[in-house]
Amino acid sequence: MEHRFTPTHYHTTLGPHKPVLHVNDGDTIITTTVDARGFDHRREQVTPRGNPQTGPFYVEGAEPGDTLVVELQEIRPNRRYGFAGSSVAPNVVDPTYIRELPQMALGEERIDAEWDVDVEAGTATLVGPESNLGPLVLPLEPMIGCFGVAAKGGQAISTATSAEHGGNMDYRGFAPATTVYFPVFEPGALFFLGDGHAVQGDGEIVGSGIEVSLEVKVTLRVLKGKEIGWPRAENEDWIMAIGNARPLDQATQHATTEMLRWLQQDYGLDALAANLLLSQCVRYDLGNIFDPAYTMVCKLNKKYLRPLDN
Amino acid sequence: MEHRFTPTHYHTTLGPHKPVLHVNDGDTIITTTVDARGFDHRREQVTPRGNPQTGPFYVEGAEPGDTLVVELQEIRPNRRYGFAGSSVAPNVVDPTYIRELPQMALGEERIDAEWDVDVEAGTATLVGPESNLGPLVLPLEPMIGCFGVAAKGGQAISTATSAEHGGNMDYRGFAPATTVYFPVFEPGALFFLGDGHAVQGDGEIVGSGIEVSLEVKVTLRVLKGKEIGWPRAENEDWIMAIGNARPLDQATQHATTEMLRWLQQDYGLDALAANLLLSQCVRYDLGNIFDPAYTMVCKLNKKYLRPLDN
Amino acid sequence: MEHRFTPTHYHTTLGPHKPVLHVNDGDTIITTTVDARGFDHRREQVTPRGNPQTGPFYVEGAEPGDTLVVELQEIRPNRRYGFAGSSVAPNVVDPTYIRELPQMALGEERIDAEWDVDVEAGTATLVGPESNLGPLVLPLEPMIGCFGVAAKGGQAISTATSAEHGGNMDYRGFAPATTVYFPVFEPGALFFLGDGHAVQGDGEIVGSGIEVSLEVKVTLRVLKGKEIGWPRAENEDWIMAIGNARPLDQATQHATTEMLRWLQQDYGLDALAANLLLSQCVRYDLGNIFDPAYTMVCKLNKKYLRPLDN
Amino acid sequence: MEHRFTPTHYHTTLGPHKPVLHVNDGDTIITTTVDARGFDHRREQVTPRGNPQTGPFYVEGAEPGDTLVVELQEIRPNRRYGFAGSSVAPNVVDPTYIRELPQMALGEERIDAEWDVDVEAGTATLVGPESNLGPLVLPLEPMIGCFGVAAKGGQAISTATSAEHGGNMDYRGFAPATTVYFPVFEPGALFFLGDGHAVQGDGEIVGSGIEVSLEVKVTLRVLKGKEIGWPRAENEDWIMAIGNARPLDQATQHATTEMLRWLQQDYGLDALAANLLLSQCVRYDLGNIFDPAYTMVCKLNKKYLRPLDN
Repeated sequence: MEHRFTPTHYHTTLGPHKPVLHVNDGDTIITTTVDARGFDHRREQVTPRGNPQTGPFYVEGAEPGDTLVVELQEIRPNRRYGFAGSSVAPNVVDPTYIRELPQMALGEERIDAEWDVDVEAGTATLVGPESNLGPLVLPLEPMIGCFGVAAKGGQAISTATSAEHGGNMDYRGFAPATTVYFPVFEPGALFFLGDGHAVQGDGEIVGSGIEVSLEVKVTLRVLKGKEIGWPRAENEDWIMAIGNARPLDQATQHATTEMLRWLQQDYGLDALAANLLLSQCVRYDLGNIFDPAYTMVCKLNKKYLRPLDN
Repeated sequence: MEHRFTPTHYHTTLGPHKPVLHVNDGDTIITTTVDARGFDHRREQVTPRGNPQTGPFYVEGAEPGDTLVVELQEIRPNRRYGFAGSSVAPNVVDPTYIRELPQMALGEERIDAEWDVDVEAGTATLVGPESNLGPLVLPLEPMIGCFGVAAKGGQAISTATSAEHGGNMDYRGFAPATTVYFPVFEPGALFFLGDGHAVQGDGEIVGSGIEVSLEVKVTLRVLKGKEIGWPRAENEDWIMAIGNARPLDQATQHATTEMLRWLQQDYGLDALAANLLLSQCVRYDLGNIFDPAYTMVCKLNKKYLRPLDN
Repeated sequence: MEHRFTPTHYHTTLGPHKPVLHVNDGDTIITTTVDARGFDHRREQVTPRGNPQTGPFYVEGAEPGDTLVVELQEIRPNRRYGFAGSSVAPNVVDPTYIRELPQMALGEERIDAEWDVDVEAGTATLVGPESNLGPLVLPLEPMIGCFGVAAKGGQAISTATSAEHGGNMDYRGFAPATTVYFPVFEPGALFFLGDGHAVQGDGEIVGSGIEVSLEVKVTLRVLKGKEIGWPRAENEDWIMAIGNARPLDQATQHATTEMLRWLQQDYGLDALAANLLLSQCVRYDLGNIFDPAYTMVCKLNKKYLRPLDN
Repeated sequence: MEHRFTPTHYHTTLGPHKPVLHVNDGDTIITTTVDARGFDHRREQVTPRGNPQTGPFYVEGAEPGDTLVVELQEIRPNRRYGFAGSSVAPNVVDPTYIRELPQMALGEERIDAEWDVDVEAGTATLVGPESNLGPLVLPLEPMIGCFGVAAKGGQAISTATSAEHGGNMDYRGFAPATTVYFPVFEPGALFFLGDGHAVQGDGEIVGSGIEVSLEVKVTLRVLKGKEIGWPRAENEDWIMAIGNARPLDQATQHATTEMLRWLQQDYGLDALAANLLLSQCVRYDLGNIFDPAYTMVCKLNKKYLRPLDN
């Protein structure tokens, strides 16, 4: 079944909030998200800033210990205006270099970069501020910065950060045609989404992608009795395990551990085989190195898994 | 001028050692390296283990404050046997997961994975140890794990680690058709190289690539009066700034800072332009997360730089 | 006014929960806390494990932007039985040393150390497990492991961890005759407390102190319009700024920054004076290096502040 | 035997340099050190800056695998002038707070604090720069910032940093009446010392103590066949294991691991006993959080060890 849902309010924590809609296993939701500052497709602010989330959606049958499957089918900016940071964040450069940044990347002093987001042309074009860079036109690569389920242990966790339940992971791999898996901690899973980016660099080093409001189409399914430790994802070519923590070392440890478990639990590998397979084939993506929890992604090309499928 | 050099002894520190050969700016050297344990193309141990280095080569005219340019022209395994770790290193997984590793990755307890390296076929094939993985055949992607110049401040730094002078960076991007730049700290630069890998995953998470002896062809040049802070590299498509430190956060800070400086110093960008360009276009590679200093690479696709070249 | 409050239920998150009692600015509360696993003074489990908290107490007049003052007047174990970890936690030793730990410190495999807590004698005596250590008798130094106010931004944060609102800081300095300051994020502040320790080493390196149930007497006051960034504390001799984060480096940054602000805001120092005073006089305590967020304390002896008081 | 040694040259790396003096096991050396910038007791610069070291002293009989024992008998500033940083270092505060530091703590822009060091009175008095701090008089607590033996593996390591061989640990516990143990990596151990501080705060957070030239009296002994992993120390009350690394988490891991080994190797404890003893009794000191490698000290009061001595 396909639901068209128009949000009327938003959340800045991922926790056990009252569901806005109940859906069944396998249902599809078409909805919209506002941008990181709460502005919608008309550039009107409809809710306070801070990655406000559409949802939560209650998925019938999902129980703690299950896995929620989120198929990202369409992620489409629904306005032309995108904003972004214009200065690398202080924590991403050497402490002694910070004063050479064009401005501080945090707080009200931040000067926005403005981008023209043209969905028809498939491009984002830098409009300002003035610099000697000249024209910069990038291909659109829309993605969702912050999404996930109600946090574990009855917590309500800020949309500024991320953990086992997902949240503000700001990973450019969360793009259309990707399937994402979240551990379920509350009945109904309680799925949230928001914080769309038209484009984002690795690491989200200016503290933002090109921030936009979105129209999104997702399908939600439940894997009963399937327990995972961290978000997982896959697309046509890759399987990906996502670790969220600070410092990067620990995010990497979480992601790598989850990948080793995945290979053993779902692909029938013994521990030695899982280690040998990763050893020379593993790849890592830096999701974000800006948010309170950083995100590292441990990934493996599916071509190495196909021989294992039979 | 082209020099064929056959090493007779090796070094396990990068410091102000006696040069084995003096070459001129622009000269090419064809030489060999032993593997990380000091074994040569005949699988005979000719020097103690620990990434033994061929060199140092003294480049006439190179002075502290200059930059040494190293064109990696050919990197070719010169034997069929490659060894590798078979277990992810303890520091790359969650501390509570370590006991589930097939073995500890450090010390004498490590069980080697054995790989058949076939240069003609362009493949590396896993030979052992026994697991339920089945056959694994990878395309060769030869690279140099440890290379660089004499360390700064008169230091002699172990080939186990890395710093501003290069060293054991274990980054899979140090492959043929790549040009690498090192800051010069000693007269003649004193260039060293060794620790060849037939293939390596991101992060070198088992503590090794597929370790081989090599035949290598490099051309050395000097950029007089050109001062850089960290190793830089470029190939046909990318410019790359390399940061070496622990934790990964600091390696990332070094790499990002060096990239920002590079864009401003060499491409004529003002600070704001450099930040705007990186903001949504930056990519990061995880070189290694195993050695005493980790390696992160901040890179930018050259297509964004071409409009700046005129 | 003095309130005697007997808890009937407990919380394992610090968030905007329904108050159990409303008190006025300056009121005193005498109450009890259960141990980290939810066992009370009779060694009966009355609530699920995880540092269950007594409270929250609503303090009339406290508003976001104020500071809650908590005078820790009495902290008294109310039973003889204390338990503790018996093995240093995996994340506190070198990854390659973990297998030499007597056991893994996490999860159900942990073997408790049992301590006899004698409040009359003022001692804690190790009862078991059997080792060749011989008798070990320590002076009681009771403290509160986890306490604070409802978290910021409407979050409900697990009692496993800590942040600006306090929480599971596990710092041995939170002892009787100490006054603690918390930033207020919710109306009424919503004060929680629990997780008593009869004794605790620096760092809480076995994942626990000597865990006990407590009788506690605290007085709560409100500083209207006083805004602080992180918990602060003082006793007869010291002022202390508390930073909670991972890694330790960041916890240290938070604590040091808060101390610099404190000296400038409350003691009339200019920036240079605050820096000069800290420079050679600063001391640090390691609160915990076990919980998801570590705790570092930046402190200064009050003898250096007395000349500034007039 | 007692040697009076007057240095004529200095080193800024700890490596296999030519010994300036050969001494026997048990000999005492009385010598001087210049300050961190190479200035002597007359405030004349006699060697380039960078913690220049007196030595190395070759101790007859010391071989790799032994331990060098250094009894710090006297450490006495030999001039009245001391300088120090006046601004907390950028890496010790939140990245967003750096611009509020009175100045950047690194590089030539650093403004010195000047201290009057009065050995007779036993005080250090702040002379400048001007601030609203008023008079600040501290008791002298002289210590050695940088000392140790030739580094391992034939390395020559900068006096800016530290590792297993000691080096620039900047720990205020390296004071008179302390005995320090270093692992020996080169024949003769090759002992170096320098970088005296009249006073130093925890963490050396301004990048310096009160920097002075010293007169020092040390006695050197060799423990044949005694192998340790990291520097150790003891004074009348404490045993201390020193870990040097970045980040602080890893320094703490090294120190804690070394302490656990120490208790088992030298005090006859089994693994469980060593863990139980540390669990509630351990203390940590923050040596430095400024240098390239940070220093954490894991320590235990000797009163808990006395029952084990018989």
